[in-house]
Amino acid sequence: MKKYTLLFIMFALLPSFAMAQKKQFTLDDLIPGGATYRQNTYPDNRYIIWWGEHCLMLDVDRCYMINRDTGAEVKVVFFLDGVNNALKKAGLKTINSLLYCSMPYADKPYILVKRTDREMALLDGKDGNVLWSASLEPGATNIDRFDKTLAYTVDHNLYVLDEMGKTHTISKDGCLDITYGESVHRDEFGISKGTFWSPKGNYLAFYRMDQSMVSSYPQVNINPNIDKSRCAQVEPDKYPMAGETSHKVTVGIFDIKKDKTIYLDAGDPTDRYFTNIAWSPDESKIYMIELNRDQNHGELVEYDVKTGARLRTVFEESNAKYFEPCNPIQFLPWNSDKFIYLTRKDGYNHIYLYNTKGKMLKQLTSGKFEVMDILGFNEKAKTIIYTSNEISPIQKNVFKVNMKAKRESIGNTTGWHSASLSPSGNDIIDNYSSPLFSRHVDVVSTLDGWTSNIFSAPDKWAQFNAPQFKVGTIKAADGVTDLYYRLTLPPDFDAKKKYPAVIYVYGGPHAHVVDASFHYGARGWDVYMAQKGYVMLSLDNRGSEHRGLEFEQATFRNLGVEEMKDQMKGVEFLKSLPYVDASRLGVHGWSFGGFMTTSLMTTYPDVFKCGVAGGPVIDWKYYEVMYGERYMDTPESNPEGYKNTSLLNKAGNLKGRLMIIYGGNDPTCVPQHTLSFIRACIDAGTYPDLFTYPGDGHNMFGTDRVHLHEVITRYFEDHLK
Amino acid sequence: MKKYTLLFIMFALLPSFAMAQKKQFTLDDLIPGGATYRQNTYPDNRYIIWWGEHCLMLDVDRCYMINRDTGAEVKVVFFLDGVNNALKKAGLKTINSLLYCSMPYADKPYILVKRTDREMALLDGKDGNVLWSASLEPGATNIDRFDKTLAYTVDHNLYVLDEMGKTHTISKDGCLDITYGESVHRDEFGISKGTFWSPKGNYLAFYRMDQSMVSSYPQVNINPNIDKSRCAQVEPDKYPMAGETSHKVTVGIFDIKKDKTIYLDAGDPTDRYFTNIAWSPDESKIYMIELNRDQNHGELVEYDVKTGARLRTVFEESNAKYFEPCNPIQFLPWNSDKFIYLTRKDGYNHIYLYNTKGKMLKQLTSGKFEVMDILGFNEKAKTIIYTSNEISPIQKNVFKVNMKAKRESIGNTTGWHSASLSPSGNDIIDNYSSPLFSRHVDVVSTLDGWTSNIFSAPDKWAQFNAPQFKVGTIKAADGVTDLYYRLTLPPDFDAKKKYPAVIYVYGGPHAHVVDASFHYGARGWDVYMAQKGYVMLSLDNRGSEHRGLEFEQATFRNLGVEEMKDQMKGVEFLKSLPYVDASRLGVHGWSFGGFMTTSLMTTYPDVFKCGVAGGPVIDWKYYEVMYGERYMDTPESNPEGYKNTSLLNKAGNLKGRLMIIYGGNDPTCVPQHTLSFIRACIDAGTYPDLFTYPGDGHNMFGTDRVHLHEVITRYFEDHLK
Repeated sequence: MKKYTLLFIMFALLPSFAMAQKKQFTLDDLIPGGATYRQNTYPDNRYIIWWGEHCLMLDVDRCYMINRDTGAEVKVVFFLDGVNNALKKAGLKTINSLLYCSMPYADKPYILVKRTDREMALLDGKDGNVLWSASLEPGATNIDRFDKTLAYTVDHNLYVLDEMGKTHTISKDGCLDITYGESVHRDEFGISKGTFWSPKGNYLAFYRMDQSMVSSYPQVNINPNIDKSRCAQVEPDKYPMAGETSHKVTVGIFDIKKDKTIYLDAGDPTDRYFTNIAWSPDESKIYMIELNRDQNHGELVEYDVKTGARLRTVFEESNAKYFEPCNPIQFLPWNSDKFIYLTRKDGYNHIYLYNTKGKMLKQLTSGKFEVMDILGFNEKAKTIIYTSNEISPIQKNVFKVNMKAKRESIGNTTGWHSASLSPSGNDIIDNYSSPLFSRHVDVVSTLDGWTSNIFSAPDKWAQFNAPQFKVGTIKAADGVTDLYYRLTLPPDFDAKKKYPAVIYVYGGPHAHVVDASFHYGARGWDVYMAQKGYVMLSLDNRGSEHRGLEFEQATFRNLGVEEMKDQMKGVEFLKSLPYVDASRLGVHGWSFGGFMTTSLMTTYPDVFKCGVAGGPVIDWKYYEVMYGERYMDTPESNPEGYKNTSLLNKAGNLKGRLMIIYGGNDPTCVPQHTLSFIRACIDAGTYPDLFTYPGDGHNMFGTDRVHLHEVITRYFEDHLK
Repeated sequence: MKKYTLLFIMFALLPSFAMAQKKQFTLDDLIPGGATYRQNTYPDNRYIIWWGEHCLMLDVDRCYMINRDTGAEVKVVFFLDGVNNALKKAGLKTINSLLYCSMPYADKPYILVKRTDREMALLDGKDGNVLWSASLEPGATNIDRFDKTLAYTVDHNLYVLDEMGKTHTISKDGCLDITYGESVHRDEFGISKGTFWSPKGNYLAFYRMDQSMVSSYPQVNINPNIDKSRCAQVEPDKYPMAGETSHKVTVGIFDIKKDKTIYLDAGDPTDRYFTNIAWSPDESKIYMIELNRDQNHGELVEYDVKTGARLRTVFEESNAKYFEPCNPIQFLPWNSDKFIYLTRKDGYNHIYLYNTKGKMLKQLTSGKFEVMDILGFNEKAKTIIYTSNEISPIQKNVFKVNMKAKRESIGNTTGWHSASLSPSGNDIIDNYSSPLFSRHVDVVSTLDGWTSNIFSAPDKWAQFNAPQFKVGTIKAADGVTDLYYRLTLPPDFDAKKKYPAVIYVYGGPHAHVVDASFHYGARGWDVYMAQKGYVMLSLDNRGSEHRGLEFEQATFRNLGVEEMKDQMKGVEFLKSLPYVDASRLGVHGWSFGGFMTTSLMTTYPDVFKCGVAGGPVIDWKYYEVMYGERYMDTPESNPEGYKNTSLLNKAGNLKGRLMIIYGGNDPTCVPQHTLSFIRACIDAGTYPDLFTYPGDGHNMFGTDRVHLHEVITRYFEDHLK
């Protein structure tokens, strides 16, 4: 009997014992690409799409309609088996999952099935007939669909497969030197693609880029896997470096009915950026913002679609430092004589209403906050739905504004939101997180704010002995500006102990690292390091995003200088914490953050004991024209700025342990950066460490990313602990 | 008074105090290229040359004749000032030092002045007249002088500047793909140059190499310093990988009087090696050893110089594994019907006497030792002067042998000798070291052995607290063969302590690391590490040089396997030493030694805690045809051997800390080796470390070499100490 009693007691104790003994994180739990990442820490999600005004939930094997107000399943719309039967009947390959299906026609029960990017079909959900299908050749990419017509590129040439199945060859001389239908200007100025269908699908505007005059960066493939030889092969990549000869972009318009291409008569494209392509609703005009190479003056220009003739400058905009248009104009659905335009000309990114004559009619949003994304319009209510950080600089919430500039928040007012607007604009599917919650999915009315929670992700972190996350502000080095920081404290934090501290930094424009999303935006690696006993700090210095133009432009022509001063305020803050061991400070960052890390290690060599810089910029003269010259001008026009910020000139200052890691084929911060720094350190008699991921680009993904974070962690464990 | 007394006592004590407190070495003291290397540890030298039978000593500012028996200065032969006055008078640029002057005409007082490789002049020492001068264009290289005629190459084309000043253009289509007058077959088979003057200077034999069909390895120059762009540039290097298509070599003969070139009629050059070019004394015949790609069969072939016609095969030689001719035949100065030929056909490298009919007349040397270099002949005494390791496998001493195969040692019988023979062959200038002495220079009679010591370098090491060096033998893994090891013990060695131990390994053919030279061949880094408290071991495993063919060929088709077994005997030996901490074993090596280091770390992962591999071979499939296929055959014919020795397949075994270091532009073990291993480790989830020297080749020189050894040392201090 006694034996059993003992067992009973043990069982009774187990739950609380288990509570105390929570799981330890592995890197696989915490890093995207890790074997247990999706299962153990990534918040579960629901794949909800709009079919007209209906909310559809996509599962692997079925798609069902949900009640917009309750989230309850209303009825199944289609099954995987049904889709596959229809595909088989039409002699097409089947699919494994419905997650890439959609119902893009509000008024028709048509299912768009994507097997791969290159293989798609349109089924009639009613009878299972295949209405249309396409299977593009291997190598087809940049696929851009309009109804049943596909634009795509193969080997830098542009093609259109029309709904009759006819292939139109738009270019023939495409090659590495001359590209058609691909993104240009290195994806700056909001450019992410190279084809632009007209609203009714009669025309395709596209980019042509001549980069024959641009230097080729010799990327080396060490595993060419080619019959001829196993010897490494060079794979040249066009890379215009700051101040050097740049590419020339022109814009073509393909008339699908006439099977004819014209080019916009924009004049000599040398040292000009053609950005933010937009169509007039009636397809008769096309607009783009044309920027000078200095990036301090732009104009919105109107062209005739039929002839390509330049009609007029709609308006101009300048800035003493730089002007960076990232959003094409958008015409009001209810008035094709008016469009909205986003600019930071008052210091913050705001929505302005213009008429097509170029007259600014009204500033629709204003205040010390930034409009982030335009989600769309509600035609009936005549409102614009957008996101902004008006509620808090570190939040992103959904708002609407009407034509009288009256704005109102929509749905939950905490956290960080991504939303998808229904076709009418009456509802949003609102997917968001907040510091304590990893994910909610709400459906929210843009009209009256009626909100229904469709999904809340279970708290996967409860099983772990998680760290503590804190957010706050400190003053920037200018003594005035508030900077947001996030502190991550070890799970069993004891304020009487002394912990080593590591700053994770990015610091560059168009990005931030602290926000009001889950855990204040803490990364898996912060968590891992906290678990290992490090205090982790991140701080968004001046120069980072969402804080207005002055905040961003404080760094102009001297990237890194003001940013470092602000980060040193973070160091002061760390040193003020009684539980931080100031003799054991480390720093880590990637890309611009790698530049910051290396800058900090070589500018404040007595402050940091250890750092890991990933894919760093080392000297802006090795960075590309578009991004680089915006912030730094050219080496010729800003020699002091380039000299002061070059880490080649600071290589001799290195004292602490610094490891640089780079992707062996990084096309963004080319290996020349890191290798030049290593060479400069050798020449100066200093001793950085080095690692590389052969074959990888600017970032590591999948298992490489897990490996990378083990390498980074190990370095701090070796040299900072 | 008391004050002075005290001072006196202090002075008295100083010398013995200073004796006890010997200097500590810095890497600059120990590593070639270090700031204090020449001053503090490199043994002083004397530049002694032959002028006929006279010994001349070269200083920077004067050249004087020394008494062959006493070493005493007899008279000044010429001064720097005098040479410069003569140059000035002739309108030529002056020189800064006489150290590159010579007096190549035994019977004439002519001084050959070399300002640079490209600028030279011949002065009459009597009257200071310039008899001849030449200044080749920048870019001229491979300069080969015969009296007053120069052969040279520019941009892979071959030229001859004759003594009348006329330039003969021998080739015009030279380029990276087709080379003339340059070394071929990647300097294997004893080839080190591409031009071969006939004995009387009437003909120039030269190599032509077509490598258009060979893969180009994409070396990348990160500092191109070219006006057009600062972007990194690819600099392709022809690199035939094992089993892949190789280059084609032909041999031309330029007739300087007829200004005409013919090519030897050797047949299809595909997959053949043309090596060891030799002239008959009368210039009517030319000989070369022609080897098949398998390198297991060769023939000495005689050609007609006038027509290029193949006359006959003089003799053939085969070997079941491989046959590696490294020495051209040499005709006896006293009998042009006979020549000597070196071969290891009896298992050791020995001298054989042949007649021109191809009949072997006599084996002149024999025994279990190896003939190393032929220094020349004594025509009058009819002897051959050569070096061998007959006295001890780890020594190199001077010998003579007569035509009756009677051999005798010449001069000092210890240590490691390099000697220069006088034109008559009566004397040698013998420059040598032995384990306890860094350098002696003796003049020794080859006739009677009369020896006079001209110079003994002062003992620079006495000022330092130097380590102890020990040499001995252990049995190889075959249980039979003696292997030589060197042990370097910390300066204040205490047998009761426990020291970490590091093996410095090379292990490949054509090299050794233990010999009877100064400190038994210990390298500066061994000394530095010993000073830091490491026991250093080096061991010449089977496969290394000077121990005969069977010893070398034990590794055939499985490079690394037997070598590692032998090195593990070294580990056993280390573990048997009571003062070695077996839990702290490290290993370091470069090139083949980098291959050995990585092989050992991944094959015996529980033995070695830490290793540093430099410029390693990782997979022999990435190594070049000539060296690689000799020992490994091709990947097609020896798939098992390639698989078993590939470290890509062992990357997952890595447990200890391993750093790989490579020259960023290594043309020998191309970066593909190291980068492929890093990639394999990432894929396998293991964690090597990495460093590179951008812009450097297979080895680091100058200050880079000092930096390198700090990096290596630091790694062991971080992870083994």
